[in-house]
Amino acid sequence: MKPRMVITPGDPAGVGPELLVRSLPEILACCDPVIIDGAGLLEQAAASFGHGELLARCERVPVPGPVDTTPGITSADNGRFVYRTIAQAVSMCRDGETSAVVTLPLHKQALAEADLKWPGHTEMLRDLAGVPHTMMLFASPGFHVALHTIHEPLHRVPPAVTTERLLEGIRFAWENTRCHLPDVTRLVVCGLNPHAGEGGRLGSEDAAIEAAIHVLRSEGMPVSGPHPADTLFYRLPRDGSVLVYAMYHDQGLIPIKTLYPTACVNMTLGLPFIRTSVSHGTAFDIAWQGKADIRNFVETVRWTANLLRRRT
Amino acid sequence: MKPRMVITPGDPAGVGPELLVRSLPEILACCDPVIIDGAGLLEQAAASFGHGELLARCERVPVPGPVDTTPGITSADNGRFVYRTIAQAVSMCRDGETSAVVTLPLHKQALAEADLKWPGHTEMLRDLAGVPHTMMLFASPGFHVALHTIHEPLHRVPPAVTTERLLEGIRFAWENTRCHLPDVTRLVVCGLNPHAGEGGRLGSEDAAIEAAIHVLRSEGMPVSGPHPADTLFYRLPRDGSVLVYAMYHDQGLIPIKTLYPTACVNMTLGLPFIRTSVSHGTAFDIAWQGKADIRNFVETVRWTANLLRRRT
Repeated sequence: MKPRMVITPGDPAGVGPELLVRSLPEILACCDPVIIDGAGLLEQAAASFGHGELLARCERVPVPGPVDTTPGITSADNGRFVYRTIAQAVSMCRDGETSAVVTLPLHKQALAEADLKWPGHTEMLRDLAGVPHTMMLFASPGFHVALHTIHEPLHRVPPAVTTERLLEGIRFAWENTRCHLPDVTRLVVCGLNPHAGEGGRLGSEDAAIEAAIHVLRSEGMPVSGPHPADTLFYRLPRDGSVLVYAMYHDQGLIPIKTLYPTACVNMTLGLPFIRTSVSHGTAFDIAWQGKADIRNFVETVRWTANLLRRRT
Repeated sequence: MKPRMVITPGDPAGVGPELLVRSLPEILACCDPVIIDGAGLLEQAAASFGHGELLARCERVPVPGPVDTTPGITSADNGRFVYRTIAQAVSMCRDGETSAVVTLPLHKQALAEADLKWPGHTEMLRDLAGVPHTMMLFASPGFHVALHTIHEPLHRVPPAVTTERLLEGIRFAWENTRCHLPDVTRLVVCGLNPHAGEGGRLGSEDAAIEAAIHVLRSEGMPVSGPHPADTLFYRLPRDGSVLVYAMYHDQGLIPIKTLYPTACVNMTLGLPFIRTSVSHGTAFDIAWQGKADIRNFVETVRWTANLLRRRT
């Protein structure tokens, strides 16, 4: 039996719907999808990009309300639609119908136009699932990256690098990663400043990182650092055994996206179900043109199927 | 005739001397080196690691004073020695005896112990050469990276991202890179914040970058940006045609060192001669053990030889 997962199509004006229908052969080869649909959305995509017969074979759950498939234009209708697809997916996880959700990209502007308070999927999922904290993890075939801060302006990052917040964040990352990815056996922590602060000469925050690592090692966690980030990544084994804890968005995402542009998968840690996402956005500039690269979505679905298979 | 270049051995307690003698076959195959030596230093390295007969064939210029080859221990003597090797190299460039200097790594602590005011090679070379500004460039077979800020604690980076400083820095990087690397035809500028600030929602400095780029484009410079740094590098052509202007140390060095760990070369822009360096440090933990990887030094010498060959 193939693993069952919910897939949401993302913003109707972006590349989500077309990626979904264009990837149906690969999706159906590895999982049993439940596709959240709305107002003829995926039929329209299938009319443009084919695979209507495969779509007809899929279990689909429609959510109500109009959608606007004008490429690259945000709308309040689409913001509300995205919210309903996610709420439906979470509700199906709650009801035990599935234990994994794969999301295609939404557009923050559409959520704002719909007067929805969440800046993105992660926060919306956190509230719908009723959990206090979530964390962004990027998984790849080589290594994985968890982020201490995500969408913070860079000037807000150094004040967030305190021993207390690091202890909380690193413990959360380690425990939640291990529960999904038991092959991870080691955690390495990036420094914040150039050369990890070079003994304090290039910044003081790395001492706070060192203090947190000292505590965690005394608790038995297999953790090391702070490592100078520029010379860390090329030395990592690429066998999936290492989780990197990065201090900020670009520090962690530059190396993983540079090495694994189509194979890195965005996971949300801390939810009572598996949630994965492609690592790209709505790509409004090429939406509904059939040009968008399906590889990252296909990898995301396959990765999720593997996670589910290992659970059973 | 092979191109002629000066090579300095770096800190005697680090991996520099052994890299120099262990690489002599590759060095002599591509250039005509003038090696700055001192107090039996390289003979001692050759006694441990071989190639004494090749060393004897090389032109060597000794600088006076004792050195301490105890591995991994800094000393004021070694700080003074490093200074004299660099002063000698600059003086030979001034006298027209050569037009390129390749340096092996020094240790900042040794300079401090010798009461020398410079934190590293770059600043020392700037003052010895009598130029007002220098900039760090990392060159690789794929793309090149210039750094807007180098060894600044991260919290000092956002205030340095102003339109005025960017105009100055980007012009300097472009002109000085083009004079050494004429194959570079395009400059791309990284954003500072996640997603290059996402239209101001994730930080304001990216607007200053955009303003600088607007001015430079109106002057005819083939420049684009600010680009989100996490999705920039995997999309770059890897044919040496692009110079990336990064806002800070790790943003630029993570991708180039991750992709080209042994093939990226540190160049100093703004000097009246070519100066290159390996992209690693003294590696005190493995010094004088014959374990240090020679590949980055060999690539640095070859790269420098190619630059010199294209000039003639």
